[in-house]
Amino acid sequence: MNFERPVRIRFSHCDPAGIVFFPRYLVMTNALVEDWFNESLGIDYSAMIRTRRVGLPIVKLDCAFSKPSQMGETITLSLELRRLGRRSVTIDVTGHAGGATRFSTQQVLVTTSLDTGASIDIPDDIRAALARFAPDVADTKQEPQS
Amino acid sequence: MNFERPVRIRFSHCDPAGIVFFPRYLVMTNALVEDWFNESLGIDYSAMIRTRRVGLPIVKLDCAFSKPSQMGETITLSLELRRLGRRSVTIDVTGHAGGATRFSTQQVLVTTSLDTGASIDIPDDIRAALARFAPDVADTKQEPQS
Amino acid sequence: MNFERPVRIRFSHCDPAGIVFFPRYLVMTNALVEDWFNESLGIDYSAMIRTRRVGLPIVKLDCAFSKPSQMGETITLSLELRRLGRRSVTIDVTGHAGGATRFSTQQVLVTTSLDTGASIDIPDDIRAALARFAPDVADTKQEPQS
Amino acid sequence: MNFERPVRIRFSHCDPAGIVFFPRYLVMTNALVEDWFNESLGIDYSAMIRTRRVGLPIVKLDCAFSKPSQMGETITLSLELRRLGRRSVTIDVTGHAGGATRFSTQQVLVTTSLDTGASIDIPDDIRAALARFAPDVADTKQEPQS
Repeated sequence: MNFERPVRIRFSHCDPAGIVFFPRYLVMTNALVEDWFNESLGIDYSAMIRTRRVGLPIVKLDCAFSKPSQMGETITLSLELRRLGRRSVTIDVTGHAGGATRFSTQQVLVTTSLDTGASIDIPDDIRAALARFAPDVADTKQEPQS
Repeated sequence: MNFERPVRIRFSHCDPAGIVFFPRYLVMTNALVEDWFNESLGIDYSAMIRTRRVGLPIVKLDCAFSKPSQMGETITLSLELRRLGRRSVTIDVTGHAGGATRFSTQQVLVTTSLDTGASIDIPDDIRAALARFAPDVADTKQEPQS
Repeated sequence: MNFERPVRIRFSHCDPAGIVFFPRYLVMTNALVEDWFNESLGIDYSAMIRTRRVGLPIVKLDCAFSKPSQMGETITLSLELRRLGRRSVTIDVTGHAGGATRFSTQQVLVTTSLDTGASIDIPDDIRAALARFAPDVADTKQEPQS
Repeated sequence: MNFERPVRIRFSHCDPAGIVFFPRYLVMTNALVEDWFNESLGIDYSAMIRTRRVGLPIVKLDCAFSKPSQMGETITLSLELRRLGRRSVTIDVTGHAGGATRFSTQQVLVTTSLDTGASIDIPDDIRAALARFAPDVADTKQEPQS
């Protein structure tokens, strides 16, 4: 199962070459994770950060940028859960439009305590929501080796 | 007549104090102008920039920030055309939520040639669309004095 | 007395028209205020935010953008203290290069408690440092009228 | 040989958790590449983009984020050339402070024509400057396999 949202390419996303400046793709994927939590997993992302003090920083990021995107285009962002660890999730996000992939990224996100900065086990309600989202993803409760 | 769009306050909009970092409000108002052109005025904003080579830079900006906005909130951005000059438009944009104004801004935008950098008269189709949007706004074809 | 720092215009500052996207000027002026505190006033800006929990949000911003700046240029940012109130400071910042002003802005910044969000009197050590920086600026301990 | 520059962590780099929001690290590495071209390779980066119309987009990006950075810290960015291909360069950039690595990234950058969008051979003067910078790096004139 994929979580998908369209995103409009804005003037502010683009560089002097007229195409998306790549770090701004990663701001988009961060917002997609927020939407995924709020709208699909049923976890209030801002309450998670602000009230529960659970952070979700990135520890590993791989990206391929295959085709530039231009202002005015609408691209579809698509998120897939690839791995559910004890303290981390691995997601794939792709951006595509007009049948062509614009970029693809794999990200490892870790749950942390915003009070101590240390990694923590994924809270039970979030783990349960992730397992419902992707029942076929092995819930190994082990961390990635890489 | 106002042009309104909701905007979600994102993790990426917020600063270490947990509230919107003010320059990011201005990225939002820039996107609102794009939506206004595309969805209300019927002018393709990206084609205006990329194909017609007409720019719309800001020359004057006044803002008041009255109440902070926090991650997870949805605020409504509301745009009003205040003045239609020969080579510029003056707009007011406010952001509000829960009955309270978060910020308000007045902006003067000038039409320019992206090839020469010089200001140009507002193209006729854009002028006509602006006049339809706000028939009560005086179309003075004079520039602001300030 | 002015506090001045050069800033290089980066690829990432510029828009599809090849010039600085205006909200990024305001990110630069924010960094200038940090440098002013750290290097001129002798107030550790990050400790002020993180340890003392004193915020310095903007409540009023006026800007004029007079001439675009392009990637590769170095512009000089110049900060002047205009007013020292009880709970706010008013500063002017200009950006100039090659004898021409690129933009000028006046900003009113207010001291707040980051724990309560409420405005607070400017702490004594910060007030003293501001008064030393600009002895000719009236220290009215009154708030701006506008 | 490494090209190194310090960078100050700014309020604007940081998120509601008080640490650098990861896409902003990549804005920093982009600026580092500009400085490397201008100050070490002797290639005017902005003239390369604006006058010569040679672009340097990223096609592959791998990052590991090992330790968060906080506002007020100064971290050292260090760039190493790992591979010099016919139409691409592979660089490693690390950020470190206080003896600890904050993040490390490998990036593949491709030379393109900004007029056609197509990849082009690295221009001779740029290739020569890169070879001088890192004489030990194999100049295979072949593209990466991955």
